[in-house]
Amino acid sequence: MSTKVKGIAASDGIGIAKAYLLVTPDLSFKKTSITDTDTEISRVHQALSVSVEDLKAIQDNAKGSLDEDTLAIFDAHIAILSDPEMIKQIDQEINDKKVNAEQALTKVTTDFANTLAAMTDNQYMQERAADVKDVSKRVLSHLLGKKLPDLAAIDSPVIIVAHEVTPSDTSQMNKKFIKGMITDLGGRTSHSAIMSRTLGIPAVVGAGEATQKIKNGEVVILDGLNGEAISNPNETETKHYQQLAQSFEQQRAEWAKLVDAPSISADGKEFEIASNIGTPADMDDVVKVGSDAVGLFRTEFLYMDSSSLPTEDDQFEAYKQVTEAMNGKPVVIRTMDIGGDKPLNYLPLPEEMNPFLGYRAIRISLDRQSIFRTQLRALIRASKFGQLRIMFPMIATLDEFRKAKAIFTEEKKKLQVDDPGIGDDIKLGIMIEIPAAAIFAEAFAKEVDFFSIGTNDLIQYSFAADRGNESVSYLYQPYNPALLKLIKHVIDAAHQEGKIAAMCGEMAGDAVALPLLMGMGLDEYSMSSSSVLRTRSTMKTLNTEKCAELVNHVLKHALTNEDTEKMVKQFLK
Amino acid sequence: MSTKVKGIAASDGIGIAKAYLLVTPDLSFKKTSITDTDTEISRVHQALSVSVEDLKAIQDNAKGSLDEDTLAIFDAHIAILSDPEMIKQIDQEINDKKVNAEQALTKVTTDFANTLAAMTDNQYMQERAADVKDVSKRVLSHLLGKKLPDLAAIDSPVIIVAHEVTPSDTSQMNKKFIKGMITDLGGRTSHSAIMSRTLGIPAVVGAGEATQKIKNGEVVILDGLNGEAISNPNETETKHYQQLAQSFEQQRAEWAKLVDAPSISADGKEFEIASNIGTPADMDDVVKVGSDAVGLFRTEFLYMDSSSLPTEDDQFEAYKQVTEAMNGKPVVIRTMDIGGDKPLNYLPLPEEMNPFLGYRAIRISLDRQSIFRTQLRALIRASKFGQLRIMFPMIATLDEFRKAKAIFTEEKKKLQVDDPGIGDDIKLGIMIEIPAAAIFAEAFAKEVDFFSIGTNDLIQYSFAADRGNESVSYLYQPYNPALLKLIKHVIDAAHQEGKIAAMCGEMAGDAVALPLLMGMGLDEYSMSSSSVLRTRSTMKTLNTEKCAELVNHVLKHALTNEDTEKMVKQFLK
Repeated sequence: MSTKVKGIAASDGIGIAKAYLLVTPDLSFKKTSITDTDTEISRVHQALSVSVEDLKAIQDNAKGSLDEDTLAIFDAHIAILSDPEMIKQIDQEINDKKVNAEQALTKVTTDFANTLAAMTDNQYMQERAADVKDVSKRVLSHLLGKKLPDLAAIDSPVIIVAHEVTPSDTSQMNKKFIKGMITDLGGRTSHSAIMSRTLGIPAVVGAGEATQKIKNGEVVILDGLNGEAISNPNETETKHYQQLAQSFEQQRAEWAKLVDAPSISADGKEFEIASNIGTPADMDDVVKVGSDAVGLFRTEFLYMDSSSLPTEDDQFEAYKQVTEAMNGKPVVIRTMDIGGDKPLNYLPLPEEMNPFLGYRAIRISLDRQSIFRTQLRALIRASKFGQLRIMFPMIATLDEFRKAKAIFTEEKKKLQVDDPGIGDDIKLGIMIEIPAAAIFAEAFAKEVDFFSIGTNDLIQYSFAADRGNESVSYLYQPYNPALLKLIKHVIDAAHQEGKIAAMCGEMAGDAVALPLLMGMGLDEYSMSSSSVLRTRSTMKTLNTEKCAELVNHVLKHALTNEDTEKMVKQFLK
Repeated sequence: MSTKVKGIAASDGIGIAKAYLLVTPDLSFKKTSITDTDTEISRVHQALSVSVEDLKAIQDNAKGSLDEDTLAIFDAHIAILSDPEMIKQIDQEINDKKVNAEQALTKVTTDFANTLAAMTDNQYMQERAADVKDVSKRVLSHLLGKKLPDLAAIDSPVIIVAHEVTPSDTSQMNKKFIKGMITDLGGRTSHSAIMSRTLGIPAVVGAGEATQKIKNGEVVILDGLNGEAISNPNETETKHYQQLAQSFEQQRAEWAKLVDAPSISADGKEFEIASNIGTPADMDDVVKVGSDAVGLFRTEFLYMDSSSLPTEDDQFEAYKQVTEAMNGKPVVIRTMDIGGDKPLNYLPLPEEMNPFLGYRAIRISLDRQSIFRTQLRALIRASKFGQLRIMFPMIATLDEFRKAKAIFTEEKKKLQVDDPGIGDDIKLGIMIEIPAAAIFAEAFAKEVDFFSIGTNDLIQYSFAADRGNESVSYLYQPYNPALLKLIKHVIDAAHQEGKIAAMCGEMAGDAVALPLLMGMGLDEYSMSSSSVLRTRSTMKTLNTEKCAELVNHVLKHALTNEDTEKMVKQFLK
């Protein structure tokens, strides 16, 4: 009998093949007290250097099939393994505590990974925790004389089924044989997800129990479009999905033709489909898919990847690079969204019981203004190189926006002494991610230039459910009519005042949400670059007036998330 | 020059007198390693028993001036000092770690207090943390041979200025000389606040820097009505407040006449003014002030004050007691609001990054149904003894309410086998404390019997600001027009369907909020019993049509919390 496993759709496409269970060997070890610290230290150094050699070999091997960005991940891994601070800590652990190499390695790398994983509001840094665990596992396997699974040996089509897929796993895969992957862990922005999209492999992540429900060698249908896998499919299911897979391939070929096309509805209404980016390096993809804008440039990387506050010049360079790369198209840059759950050792913040409800983002910026002013100056200076917009995160009250705007104006005036007119064409907007701001959008719309609805946080706060907490994940309800009502209110309020309404949360790239958002008249849809062409293609098929009727119907009759989903799917048929 | 200190209005009234700075002696100590563990253990036992003697003496001394409930606090303190588990832990700490008595005592009591303080969603338990610290300080003072301040020696009128006032402090005060108190710490439900209300002493709590801004011996005006203190007042200020104090005394006498009066507006519209309670013991006060209902009976005490899940019979007894005491008036009982931030050792819950956004309240009840079913059965059985209503906390979606109702109906049907008709007249309602539920109130109103707006949480989630976090306390904005809009929407939605709209958050007893809520037509105002008569008295002076005009004016013109506050104060003049 067939078994269905549900997860998060992470990379489009459909794959059908036998399951390859990616099982890590038992890396458990005894914790022993040692006396000969020199031997243990040299064991760990030896294992570190063999691991570096491993990674270099894999990287070389992958040079034909993986792109530059992906190959760069190996450099990052090698850098972790060569980090003198980490090695020093491991040595110290052995010297001070007289523990064996395995124990010292695990202690130090776990602490490091935990620090990263605790940054729950920064998915980028959180997912770096997986990198650290990944390299640590490699070193441990060498210490224990065990062999990690050899993906390079796969020589027939498979669907990878894993607890978590690491970048070094992915790199060892011969793309020709990998028809899809499904993982227990991960979100849409985990490594598994990002790399599968880069490689064009259909993927489902965060599937919870995939490795328990799917057995090695079973036939698996992997549906990366709907985030599902079916193991042991019956004939009907297989046929159905084979057809789907075929038509998806045709679709993908069609999508590729849309790189230079406008983002336009069936009835000729123009929209903007934009990209969310985390670092300037993401611009390659943005340009490649022909995004109409950068709808969200997160600036946290400047603060996180650094041992001290980023200078005005460092920031200026990053903002300039992205703005220039867009060649006159809009670039929305969000001021820093650092908070109590993201420890920066150069900026001590209070420990908080509920960091998502704490001292973060604009709350810090308005409180510690020198950090904020430096960022604003860098942004104003970079605005000369394109169409730069500034967006403030976590705005809850009008007072906060007014204060932020006043500080912006002060810094602009200072810069205008030497450079008249600089920054005068910068549009100032806010993230709508706190319910109070969404509810009061009509007042904000009179004072801001644009809104960008951050649905991930807006949903989290509207339903009072931490989006990182599995126990309450059922409350992530993007189609709940309460939320749709709120979003429509925000869009209407913006339009009432002739302002732009954008969205930069996960929902903006969601296929079920698209007709609803088009029906509400959302102007800009900002998403991961890999979703841009699919969305542009779907948009072409949708009539905005019909979508508006759908919205009316949903808001009149839907009472639950499921109600809406059914109505939209019916509409899309 | 006069200095103003602002805090939270905790107990009504105005006091003018010299400041008495309640300064605790330096209780710092050296952490030493010891070898003679027996001596240290006997030192700590000795200090514990002297402290018990102290407390008994103070309790005896206070018997004339303090009521039974307050005197019972000393029993609780004595119980803490005699807790065999705690003493065992202290002994162990000394035996295992070879530390001196001071260190062992501090370690064990601090851990205990921290566990309690971490229960941020349960103010009652949080404030018990202060009790533990309080008794620990007493024991420590005996270990160090130092004397705690002797409040009993005060022989002229004073305003107590303290970091925190402990119950044993309060008990030593001769009420005759204490004209008011102001503390740096504490909220409206802290011990300082509760005891000052019981004693009828005006109080301001949570004033932050009172002990730093006010000097010993300075004249201080304490305004417990507005949550302010003025030290070194000038003549004009003094005169102004002397008049205020006099008229307040007249007021209080008037209020006392309203115990049996209806809760009615100037234009004759009837409302309900109700009490929030935490345990059946709170019923004395409810009856004393003549509340129209119990608007919120929190049932957490049953789960917290116990070493195992409360039985159906235990619960039945508690619900029956409260319901009977109200003599036919409505009693709204909220099902358990336990969550990840409140560790119950018999019910392991996952550790969470953001417990306020986590697995709690109805989310647990729907997931672990046996706990929920036990509570519902006890409630249904108790409904025979009066007008019992059941309220579900933390409802975010209609699905959740429907599931809860279905479980209620199942349990009711089971009980009706032996007792036909039982529970058929129970009204089922929900807390409106999650933005999504408030926004979608029109849909909920069709299916529930009543709403009770929990403003503390609703504000916390609407502004994404932890109400226990000082760094973001500026976002507690009960008068923010965004929130008022939302509250009005909830009330309108209830009335559209002929349902009751109640409120049981802090805001329900707030003097500035009252005209706004009356203008919106809120039906029931549930607050601490000590605020009932004041509110009933103010209500008599307010015309609901004028209040409705005020609401319209505010919703049209106010853009910030401050805007609203000014408009209401202008209206009340």
